[in-house]
This record gives sequence, C-alpha cells and structure tokens, in this order.
Amino acid sequence: MLYLLDLFGVAVFAITGALAAGRKRMDVFGIVVVAIVTALGGGTLRDLILGARPVFWVTQPEQIVVATVAAIGTFIVVRFTSLPGRALLLFDAFGLALFTIGGCQKALPLVDSDIIVVIMGILTGVAGGVIRDILCGEIPVILRREVYATAALLGCIAFVLLRGSGIESGFAAGGAMLLVLAVRLAAIHWRISLPTFNASSATE
Amino acid sequence: MLYLLDLFGVAVFAITGALAAGRKRMDVFGIVVVAIVTALGGGTLRDLILGARPVFWVTQPEQIVVATVAAIGTFIVVRFTSLPGRALLLFDAFGLALFTIGGCQKALPLVDSDIIVVIMGILTGVAGGVIRDILCGEIPVILRREVYATAALLGCIAFVLLRGSGIESGFAAGGAMLLVLAVRLAAIHWRISLPTFNASSATE
Amino acid sequence: MLYLLDLFGVAVFAITGALAAGRKRMDVFGIVVVAIVTALGGGTLRDLILGARPVFWVTQPEQIVVATVAAIGTFIVVRFTSLPGRALLLFDAFGLALFTIGGCQKALPLVDSDIIVVIMGILTGVAGGVIRDILCGEIPVILRREVYATAALLGCIAFVLLRGSGIESGFAAGGAMLLVLAVRLAAIHWRISLPTFNASSATE
Repeated sequence: MLYLLDLFGVAVFAITGALAAGRKRMDVFGIVVVAIVTALGGGTLRDLILGARPVFWVTQPEQIVVATVAAIGTFIVVRFTSLPGRALLLFDAFGLALFTIGGCQKALPLVDSDIIVVIMGILTGVAGGVIRDILCGEIPVILRREVYATAALLGCIAFVLLRGSGIESGFAAGGAMLLVLAVRLAAIHWRISLPTFNASSATE
Repeated sequence: MLYLLDLFGVAVFAITGALAAGRKRMDVFGIVVVAIVTALGGGTLRDLILGARPVFWVTQPEQIVVATVAAIGTFIVVRFTSLPGRALLLFDAFGLALFTIGGCQKALPLVDSDIIVVIMGILTGVAGGVIRDILCGEIPVILRREVYATAALLGCIAFVLLRGSGIESGFAAGGAMLLVLAVRLAAIHWRISLPTFNASSATE
Repeated sequence: MLYLLDLFGVAVFAITGALAAGRKRMDVFGIVVVAIVTALGGGTLRDLILGARPVFWVTQPEQIVVATVAAIGTFIVVRFTSLPGRALLLFDAFGLALFTIGGCQKALPLVDSDIIVVIMGILTGVAGGVIRDILCGEIPVILRREVYATAALLGCIAFVLLRGSGIESGFAAGGAMLLVLAVRLAAIHWRISLPTFNASSATE
C-alpha cells in the first residue's frame, strides 16, 4: 500500500518533469529523461549523501518503468488535450508530502542528528524539481517564489518533534505528511510567498 | 587495446567540451574543467549510483591527463585553424558507442535488472554531454533535438538482448557498439529527429 | 582552532551564495539552500568521488547550522546596509585557500596519485561556487574570467611538491594556503585574467 503510494508520487513528479521538458520543445527522449530525473533525483541524492549503496532504484527498476510510462503517457495525452493544471498542483503537493517524509524515515536510522534528518527530508522532496528546472534552463522555481520547500521543512520538523515525543513512527509520518500537504495547499490557495531580498541594497 | 580505445573516447569527448567552453569565452582553466567533466562525467555518475568506490578515474589518473592534454591541444589548435566539424561528429559518435556499451558492461555484473543495465549504459554515454551544456548555460542539446541518446538506447537494448541469447560478452558488446555508431551516423547524415511536444496544447 | 577556521570558510562561502541568490530575487528559503550548497557542495562532491561514507557534514550538522545562520544574517543585514564587497572578496579568497588545501589533505591518504590529490583539492575549493552559479542561472564565473581556480591549482601543486620533498604535512598545508591566498589577492588587485579562445576561428 505504502509502496503503491510511493509509485504514485513517482508518476506525478514524472508528469511535472515531462510537462516542463515539453514546454522547452525537447524530443521524446529528452522528455523521458527529465521525467525520470525529476521523479528519482531527490532520492538519488539522498542515498548518495547517506552512503546507501547502491542507490534505491537500482534494485527497484519498476520506479524507472513508472516514470517512463508516465512521461510517454503525458506526451501522448497533451497532443489531444491539455492537462488540468489545478489537479496537477494538487497531486504534486501529494508527491511532495510522500517523498519528503519518506526521506526523513529513510535517514532516521542512519544519522545521529535531527538537523540532518530534516535536511535529508527536504532534499528528497525538492531536489528532483531543482534538477528538472536546471535541465530546462530555468532558475529553479522552488527556490524563487513559492511556499514549496517551506512546506517540506515544516513537515520534517514536525516529524522530528513527533518522533522525539515518543509517537510511533507510522503515526508521526502520517501527521507530518498531512502538515506538508496542508501548508502547500494553503500556499497555492492563498498565493502565499516568502519575502525576498531588498536587492537594490545588496553589494557588488 | 580496448583501454586505448577508451582513452580515445575520453579525448574526443574532451575536445567537444573544450569547444563548447571556448565558444562561451571561458578561460583556459574553464575550458580544461569543462573538457574533463564532459569526458568523465557520465562514468562518474554511473559509478556513484552503482556504489563503485572510489570512482574509476581516482585510480586511473591518466584519464585526467588525456582529457587535459586534449583540451589544451584544442585551445592551441583553434588559435591557428578551425577544427573539422564533420570529423568531430564522427569521432564523437565513436566515443558515444564506446562509452555507452562500456557502461553496460560495467553494470552487468553489479545489477539484477536489464532495465538498470540499459539506464547505466545511457547514463555513461550521455551524462557528460548534459553536464557540459549545463556548465555552458545551455539546455542540453542531447535532450532537445538529435537522435543521440536514442542511438545509445538502441545499442543498450541490443547488448542486453544479445547477452540474454547467450552470445559471448565481447561479441555482444562489439555488435551493440556498431549499432550505436550506425544509428548515430545515419541520424547525422539524414538529419533524423524525434517528435517533440505539441506545446501549444500543454497546460499551465 | 583549525576547525574554527573551517567553519569560518563555510560562513564566508555561504554569504557569497546568499548574495548571489538574493540578486536573483529568490525567497529566504532559496537563499538558505544556495548558501548551504555553495558552502558544502565542493566537499560533498569530493567525499562522493573518494567514496567517503557518509559525506562529511552528515556527522557535522554544525556545518549546516553555520551556513544557515550566515545566510539568514546576510538576508537581514542587506535590508539595512550594503555589505563591503572588497572585504567579502578577501574573505572569499581566505575560504578558497582553506577549502582547497583541506581537500588535498583529506584526499592524500586515500589516493595513490598526486594528480588526483590536486584534482580533489580544486574540486573541494571551487565546485560549490560552480553549483551556486548554475542554481542562479549563470555560467559559472569561476570558469569564465578570473584567476580563481588557477590560484587553487597552484596551491595544490605546491602542497604536493612540498609533501613530496618530505616537509611535514601541517607546514606544507600552511605554505600552500598562503600561496593560494597570495595568487588570488594578486589577481584581484591587478585584475589578472587567463587567455580565452579565439572564438571566431572555432568550428561548427
């Protein structure tokens, strides 16, 4: 069940990658590559940094298959109709919640510091989207204007606090995922943004 | 003999990196860096993901030397004359075939799934060029319009099928390399491209 | 003492990351991410390639804390005043010297080849800045026009030569750091640049 949810997150992230690549007029192959990297990039970086060998999807090729099918499906569907952007944002928020807290859970037994658990969760949730935007020649949107990674951050902190207060891992994860989802959906609904630099006064 | 071929592939990829960096008016140092990353980036990522420790070139410094010499040689030569673009494309196709199928061979004993063998082959063959283009501030050309990674994909599939039908590893690799080369050269000769998105109908 | 110096280097690199991100109008979260990646990216790549597991900062969360505090501090300070660009360049040169030679020292017992020691030193010193610029949508300035990585290169060579002539590790490192610092400051002061391509004659 949990693994099916995880594959659902892979599919959703792959679709956002395929759409971003398609807008840059990449060919089918480029679209599939960007989709795979968007879906699996965050977990790959997490495993590399934690020293998990090999990276998770090497023993789970179905993750590659799901991302590829989602990308090709997207490629075909947008020839006939446009995807519902609103629904995609919702699904993407769901994938963010799953991936972020899943990253925390994977890091928890491997590291000593809660700070590193939080960092690993955020990395798992958002790094795929950052690489996607770089491959598409854009400054990563996640770093620029949306309460996206902030939702991941709050979820990770909640997970660490709930675990620290003795709550069972599954419940802590469930609660933290709901928090990520709630913050992200609230940010979409009310268009909440974080403050930016007062750039005119920055140096150089 | 095979290792000499491999170093030839390193040199050719390094030259494409040096030319790309030079066009962006990087200095000598930047040119050498981009050349090294282009030549060794794909194999580095492959080794990291498979968990091979350390990365191959750490114990083969001659790979760094070859890439550096090729880059500085390119820098000097283009001050006096222009390089033959057609010959370069040919050599690059040769390097692609070598690197891609070499990547499959390295992955074969380490992973259980044919899908992962294929992914590792493509990664080894094309990731260096992708990082090159990102360092140069371009959307990776490989993802955009050429039958390049597709040639790698077909070669990897051929390698896996030939191995699966019991053909000896060296022959399977040789046949698969010829296929990569043939597809890539055909694509260059007839300017074959893959279809792209019908972008106007994509969402957002 | 040495470790305090190292954390000082982290803080300085984080500030350059925060400033670069702020100029691109990223939000607070993006600024912190770019700051952390700038400060820790080089050492992370070094550890991954050498196969050190896990990456150094996983067991040193204070590195993340220092980078985060430096980034948020920068964010707050530039709302009221501009940072002294000249002082920053000086501090950055200091961080470059520390990180580069520190990278050589970490690689020394792990690899057989002096060439790889040099490569690891440069990678540790400059990769963070390269990733920073890519995240900000810029062609890495380090590859383009300044004697920056060249200062790192000369310092690494000096370190290897001093070690090879039997000088004790701490003295070799100190001397090499001073060389990096001297070359970098000379380059800033006299605006020294390396030659670039004669691009008009390059091919394609």
